[in-house]
Amino acid sequence: MLEAALRDGTADRLCTFEVFARKLPNERRYGVVAGTARVVRAVQDYVFTEEQLSTLDFLDETTIDYLRHFRFSGHIDGYREGELYFPYSPLLTVRGTFAECVILETVILSIMNADSAVASAAARMVTAADGRPIIEMGSRRTHEYSAVTASRAAYLAGFTSTSNMEAAFRYGIPASGTSAHAWTLLHVDDDGQPDEKAAFKAQIDALGVDTTLLVDTFDISQGVRNAIEVAGPELGGVRIDSGDLGAITRRVRSQLDELGAYNTKILVSSDLDEFTIAGLRGDPIDGFGVGTSVVTGSGAPTAHMVYKLVEVEGHPVAKRSRGKAMTGGAKKALRTHRASGTAVEEIVYPFHNEAPEFPGLTSVDLTVPLIRDGEAVPGQPTLEESRDYLAQQLVTLPWEGLALSRDEPVVSTRFVGFPEQQ
Amino acid sequence: MLEAALRDGTADRLCTFEVFARKLPNERRYGVVAGTARVVRAVQDYVFTEEQLSTLDFLDETTIDYLRHFRFSGHIDGYREGELYFPYSPLLTVRGTFAECVILETVILSIMNADSAVASAAARMVTAADGRPIIEMGSRRTHEYSAVTASRAAYLAGFTSTSNMEAAFRYGIPASGTSAHAWTLLHVDDDGQPDEKAAFKAQIDALGVDTTLLVDTFDISQGVRNAIEVAGPELGGVRIDSGDLGAITRRVRSQLDELGAYNTKILVSSDLDEFTIAGLRGDPIDGFGVGTSVVTGSGAPTAHMVYKLVEVEGHPVAKRSRGKAMTGGAKKALRTHRASGTAVEEIVYPFHNEAPEFPGLTSVDLTVPLIRDGEAVPGQPTLEESRDYLAQQLVTLPWEGLALSRDEPVVSTRFVGFPEQQ
Repeated sequence: MLEAALRDGTADRLCTFEVFARKLPNERRYGVVAGTARVVRAVQDYVFTEEQLSTLDFLDETTIDYLRHFRFSGHIDGYREGELYFPYSPLLTVRGTFAECVILETVILSIMNADSAVASAAARMVTAADGRPIIEMGSRRTHEYSAVTASRAAYLAGFTSTSNMEAAFRYGIPASGTSAHAWTLLHVDDDGQPDEKAAFKAQIDALGVDTTLLVDTFDISQGVRNAIEVAGPELGGVRIDSGDLGAITRRVRSQLDELGAYNTKILVSSDLDEFTIAGLRGDPIDGFGVGTSVVTGSGAPTAHMVYKLVEVEGHPVAKRSRGKAMTGGAKKALRTHRASGTAVEEIVYPFHNEAPEFPGLTSVDLTVPLIRDGEAVPGQPTLEESRDYLAQQLVTLPWEGLALSRDEPVVSTRFVGFPEQQ
Repeated sequence: MLEAALRDGTADRLCTFEVFARKLPNERRYGVVAGTARVVRAVQDYVFTEEQLSTLDFLDETTIDYLRHFRFSGHIDGYREGELYFPYSPLLTVRGTFAECVILETVILSIMNADSAVASAAARMVTAADGRPIIEMGSRRTHEYSAVTASRAAYLAGFTSTSNMEAAFRYGIPASGTSAHAWTLLHVDDDGQPDEKAAFKAQIDALGVDTTLLVDTFDISQGVRNAIEVAGPELGGVRIDSGDLGAITRRVRSQLDELGAYNTKILVSSDLDEFTIAGLRGDPIDGFGVGTSVVTGSGAPTAHMVYKLVEVEGHPVAKRSRGKAMTGGAKKALRTHRASGTAVEEIVYPFHNEAPEFPGLTSVDLTVPLIRDGEAVPGQPTLEESRDYLAQQLVTLPWEGLALSRDEPVVSTRFVGFPEQQ
């Protein structure tokens, strides 16, 4: 496309591309925008190396030369990272020449789709956990680099910490973790017989009694006895990674209390997702470790966002393919709220129009400038700020918005100021 | 764990860790091992930078120093890349000190789980396509680096080419792609009215009449007429990306034939997976473009492989957690075949035993040396060789093994030579 556009002169046409999703996956009630800050960085870093160019032997010299000097010089506006979104929310509005905008399609969508899928699932788990902390521990169940950004997206959505050291290093996310079954199994005596107490003792010697011991390698009741015998009643926590977690944690809580370990916490893991976490709401659990389900988006590993050309030299354009119709024209959005703070509606309007007004409601601009002339707009939020922003936004949803069951989007989207026939 | 092991002296214990999966996802009948070559490379490249180490302030100096000088010096044996696997197949056997093996857990599992998930789904799509080519075009629906290795895994499994240029660059996979709706929409006249023919003409001017034109941006019948009017009956292909692909392609085939474009191919895309591809088996389709479903493993975005300690200083070890029991001891595997070549059974036996014999059947060793003393064993297969290997292996499955419906694993696994009580 790039080569053909450079040849026929359309490469320089001023275009607007838009990122949006036609639906929320799995009939969820809201989505969480994530990856925006990574997009801002990636767009600025996007260049081609000579080594890469040397393999593009199917392109003509003009096109290779274009890529050699490629730097995005356009503008991007869009939803804040940590913002809620709904079907057809105009998440990013990318303006520039056709050539420079079309090149960025894949990297922008990859980041937004992957990060938003994780954050959207993670936010539901945080709601289900009802204030109890969640450690992200899913690195091993996704691509080695995806693991790092999945940790980031989960933290954005309210997870407490990550077991991924690279994510801690790169994004400043609090690191935590627990020991594995391998640690217990490593401790065999000279006859090769398991010695769980030796494993617990060594862990406490290294990390103090505030550590969390994994007690389900062999027999859980015996594991708990061994743990308290070695650590004393000041043991920080025990982790249980198998079985019927509700029944087991109730039993373990009684056992710990009988042993005087009233403050020893119970952490659970084992293929948890938002539904199993919700099912454990009444049980004596102090924290969760979540792996596979969060890094794979809990049944929705991609957010299904698309990147579509909506305007060419000021003319709105739109395809009419069956089931994939869309509204042409560059767009902005705002969300209206009642005086109580509850969100009412998402309003999408033409990018260059004044924001419509809604008497009796307050409006929040959802579209903010992210990149101008290829450079990040100063004052981009930190990850912590985006995390706080999301937490505030979740509170604005109508009360049924946080339910886990399948339903319609909880906030509806209305297009205002566009021609009828599009 | 590492710090505690260095303190209590268990860090140097000679251990064996094993990668295996307890089940195949979604009741599939076989899995495809992928990522092995990437693991071999990653293990050799695995080091810590001073910048990374400087942030590990919760570790003692001994541990930091261990990481500073970390190089894996052990051995890895395992299934070839492109091998078929089943529940409890011992996919990788990692031998070394506890410390050096435990550090590698996450990177090894991330690679194997991500790549095997994609390859296992992709192989089913290739079967469903029944000899017709499939382009991998899912980059935008997964993490930006995961996109590159997903392309590789899809190609391993028999996809024909990729639209991911970095995968083409890095792994030598044939690159291909088609134009997008944005290309057609870009071509508006001075009044902002769509001009599909201008888009088709520019594409043909740049790429010749052998190119593939996307004909469903507005009206498909008109799109096909426009395409042949501009390109002539020698047009290489048309792509359709929306609607009921069976009905539409039958109509488009008639239309093309009436226009004399007998050799113009029909390519389809639009959220295809193995089931929709199979459903199009009787339709006049010459090739498929597959995106989301292949990069997300078609409902199984991770292969659920685990990395478990199975032997310590020659003693078999195993946890007994409910639902997660396993057989201790280092393992190898072979697969028996009838004279016809059909696979009969997977036999797992102790790593240091002689391979058991099965009169009347031929045996193929599934466990091959990959890394010795931290270095790749010479003669590792290329990606093309692994791709050919998989194609050969798929032919050995009992005929029902290639069916798409849910069922048991088509080859059963038997443990031979282990003590009864494990």
